[in-house]
Amino acid sequence: MRVIKLPCWDWLRHYNRQTMGSDLVAALIVTIMLIPQSLAYALLAGLPPEMGLYASILPLMAYAIFGSSRTLSVGPVAVVSLMTATAVGKVAQQGSIDYATAATTLALLSGLILVLLGLMRFGFVTNFLSHPVVSGFITASGIIIAISQLSHIFGIEAPGKTLPELAQSLATTIGTTNVYTLGIGASCLLLLQLSRRHLSGLLKQCGLSLFASETLARAAPVAVITLSTLVAYGADLQARGVALVGTIPQGMPAFSQPYIEWTVIEELLLPALLIALIGFVESVSVGRTLGAKRRERIDANQELMGLGAANLSSAFSGGFPVTGGFSRSVVNFDAGAQTQAASIFTAAGIALAALFLTPILYYLPKATLAATIVVAVSSLIDWKTIKEAWNYDRADFMAIAITILLTLFLGVEIGVISGVSASIALHLHRTMRPHFAIVGTVPGTEHYRNIDRHDVRTHANLLSIRVDESLYFANAAFLEELVDTELAQREGIEHVILMCPAVNMIDLSALEALQEVNSSLLERDVKLHLSEVKGPVMDALKRSPLLRQLGGKVYLNHHAAVLELAV
Amino acid sequence: MRVIKLPCWDWLRHYNRQTMGSDLVAALIVTIMLIPQSLAYALLAGLPPEMGLYASILPLMAYAIFGSSRTLSVGPVAVVSLMTATAVGKVAQQGSIDYATAATTLALLSGLILVLLGLMRFGFVTNFLSHPVVSGFITASGIIIAISQLSHIFGIEAPGKTLPELAQSLATTIGTTNVYTLGIGASCLLLLQLSRRHLSGLLKQCGLSLFASETLARAAPVAVITLSTLVAYGADLQARGVALVGTIPQGMPAFSQPYIEWTVIEELLLPALLIALIGFVESVSVGRTLGAKRRERIDANQELMGLGAANLSSAFSGGFPVTGGFSRSVVNFDAGAQTQAASIFTAAGIALAALFLTPILYYLPKATLAATIVVAVSSLIDWKTIKEAWNYDRADFMAIAITILLTLFLGVEIGVISGVSASIALHLHRTMRPHFAIVGTVPGTEHYRNIDRHDVRTHANLLSIRVDESLYFANAAFLEELVDTELAQREGIEHVILMCPAVNMIDLSALEALQEVNSSLLERDVKLHLSEVKGPVMDALKRSPLLRQLGGKVYLNHHAAVLELAV
Repeated sequence: MRVIKLPCWDWLRHYNRQTMGSDLVAALIVTIMLIPQSLAYALLAGLPPEMGLYASILPLMAYAIFGSSRTLSVGPVAVVSLMTATAVGKVAQQGSIDYATAATTLALLSGLILVLLGLMRFGFVTNFLSHPVVSGFITASGIIIAISQLSHIFGIEAPGKTLPELAQSLATTIGTTNVYTLGIGASCLLLLQLSRRHLSGLLKQCGLSLFASETLARAAPVAVITLSTLVAYGADLQARGVALVGTIPQGMPAFSQPYIEWTVIEELLLPALLIALIGFVESVSVGRTLGAKRRERIDANQELMGLGAANLSSAFSGGFPVTGGFSRSVVNFDAGAQTQAASIFTAAGIALAALFLTPILYYLPKATLAATIVVAVSSLIDWKTIKEAWNYDRADFMAIAITILLTLFLGVEIGVISGVSASIALHLHRTMRPHFAIVGTVPGTEHYRNIDRHDVRTHANLLSIRVDESLYFANAAFLEELVDTELAQREGIEHVILMCPAVNMIDLSALEALQEVNSSLLERDVKLHLSEVKGPVMDALKRSPLLRQLGGKVYLNHHAAVLELAV
Repeated sequence: MRVIKLPCWDWLRHYNRQTMGSDLVAALIVTIMLIPQSLAYALLAGLPPEMGLYASILPLMAYAIFGSSRTLSVGPVAVVSLMTATAVGKVAQQGSIDYATAATTLALLSGLILVLLGLMRFGFVTNFLSHPVVSGFITASGIIIAISQLSHIFGIEAPGKTLPELAQSLATTIGTTNVYTLGIGASCLLLLQLSRRHLSGLLKQCGLSLFASETLARAAPVAVITLSTLVAYGADLQARGVALVGTIPQGMPAFSQPYIEWTVIEELLLPALLIALIGFVESVSVGRTLGAKRRERIDANQELMGLGAANLSSAFSGGFPVTGGFSRSVVNFDAGAQTQAASIFTAAGIALAALFLTPILYYLPKATLAATIVVAVSSLIDWKTIKEAWNYDRADFMAIAITILLTLFLGVEIGVISGVSASIALHLHRTMRPHFAIVGTVPGTEHYRNIDRHDVRTHANLLSIRVDESLYFANAAFLEELVDTELAQREGIEHVILMCPAVNMIDLSALEALQEVNSSLLERDVKLHLSEVKGPVMDALKRSPLLRQLGGKVYLNHHAAVLELAV
């Protein structure tokens, strides 16, 4: 096995005081933002709040060592937390395992899958997921997450993982709304939304510097959280039925052991794979976006190792599945983080919070956390790509629409599987009818062009077909049909010449189709010839029986074929 | 909805006495062959023997009315029977439904799926299944079927649906072999194999005509069956523990009602889909092979309707999933069948057998039926395609090897799903790195060729890249990388020109990649231009923001771009 790469050496070697200063400032800002966010995503995943903190300590350090991006910030993120809730809900209901253990087991499996893919250098799998489809999936997940948080804001019990489930449970329990909870939740939502939109601009107008006003605006959620905690404490909202975060065990995470039993693993394997893939694709896309701004290269295979290590360490320290998050990474980047040391400092900050801050968090209302989630996921909802797809290409739009509708109505797992299948199926469907042209000689030249578009010369006993795509299983049947159809429209054809300058590959199915075409032509006393076959394709054909069976010949040049065969 | 087509009108209009004569002879030969084969495949599917007969009456008539092939013979076939056994075994074990009812329900679901696909004109789905993969799947199924029949030949109980299961159960029960059963089974196997290989040749040497010797050779199984039935009766083999077919209810099938309950249907839906697809692909390929010999066109969409109708009628007359079989269709064709009337006569023949022949079949040893199955499936095993794939293309070989190994070791369902996934993944992987070339001017011309292969002229401030494939999600990332890499190797580039004469499509993911390339080039003060963009691609680009954002221009002709931009 090849030696495992540690990208952290690259920056550790040149680490100096100045870089450390930048990294410390960034870490402070990110830590303040991450404490409530970690609690909120644990809540979203249906897990105890401390698990959110645990998932933001060791995983950050693991990624700092193994990951290839210098500014990516890893931890619990919204979509992966929703996927965790869905997967864990299924197993935990069946009762053989408790909810929290199932979540750590899921992190273990995702981590193993990521590391395995990394060792096999399967970073290219990101290419299989069409970006519009992933964006559609995230939009739909964002909608489900936002709606699922309404129950916390209204102070009701309304579980559900799909739009119909949520609508039904909201409709039946909306009558039990707790007005105090709704008051807290709605005010937080309003304050967060307003500060997000307008605070930074307002502060700048008041004469603050760009950096100061943006940093202060970013700290607004902390103010909202502090305020609502104080209100909950002062007005004794717990007595009025407002759900609070409550007791969080103080201290560092203990070593946790995921649950290893085949029946549970079997059930969690597919969700773990989907979480690994979606997490990976999202993380790489965030990493690439940030990397492009600083001319940093993101190595997809190394990212698999980094995210794998993060998830494995999350599994063994009482966390749940993590990945590189968009908003946290942007904050980290904008706050001036230079290297992954910022993530290590952030992890230390979160660890301090887990040690000393948890008693204060007792009075934090869950409705406040729900409000922060709603505001955070509203940025995931991306109507722009959908609109662009509608304008640009209806097939892409269809794939996105299928993904969004199935995610909303049947859940995240079916949604993402259908999305990937739809984009692959659409692509295959598109290449199933390869572009082709019947060609003739441009008078006075040796060039051949489409007879439908140019004024060219053809010969009565020749049919020249130029195929403009590689031949493979999905378009092999079309080839047979094409020759049949074109031949049926013409009288007196003795030779069919397939001109192959754009054929980069002929797979075995297409080879069989060519053999069929050849023998069916021979039965009709027509000879099949090939012209302008590319080098690598010709090498492959030489290993097949086709060249022996061929009724005609293979010509290097189409014009040479026509000169020899035309009467 | 469009009117449902009845292809049978085409031949019914011209039907005459002579055609009827040919069809009657073919029907007689096929009927004689089908009686034992139907019983045998019912045995293979784990069903009572009469269901094999029932599946060979109405389904033949339904296909005759709706199918588009004139000579295809529909009924129970080996691979579909094995898939039925696998699917039904899972549901029936769970106890909510009996084995036979599950099989008719499976036929119902397959039929509905086929008709639905037919109404949506989804005949193109055959193109998604790479032929080598299907052939690998059938080879592996054939091996499993042959081994599974050994238990009947040895007279032991050795259930199993995969190679390891079969090996284990054979190893533990081989000690209980019944020598009389083994005697009957092994002799039948030997006789069948010998007559299949040599009888027709032998008879020809004795001076019989080709037709007579082939027909007699084909009747050999009937002789073997008659002989073993007589031996079983005369020597009272039942008393010696030889398993016989036993009582078959006499008469025509009653109207049967499949079991409609959501939990069962949910469980059977995927197997029904796989059976529908594999059955359809096999049937169409048989139909096309025979059709090519008589210049008959097989319409894939109409075939979906024909096979759908056959399965629905099987479901309502106590049968199980059916499809067009290779050996039975070849026999039908070679025996001179002209139209589907031959199938209707065959159905009548089987009906007569169900009415009057069943008492005679009481003494037929199951070992004899098992022997006929082993001999029949030995023709399914196709090492040739595997060898060809090995020689021709290692990627195709890998897909076949994965399919065969997974089918053998994990069962038919996982096998076929993995096979299809593997062939699609391999194809995408191949197109992920599209063919491209850095091009320069062929001196004294306006032609542009690969700088690595030709002696061409380039310009210091220009980078001309010709992309030879459509751009879509799987190769979009590659495009960004390509431009980056090539640019990094050169100094002083001011313009990158993408030459797109072979780009037939740019999907939304690739469009986003182009936008990325454009803006990252702009940051480096390099302009991106496009040249020789095809008409439909240009139309699509005009609906996108790319053309507005583009740093450079779009040129109709690459040479014009170079003339304008080179310094």
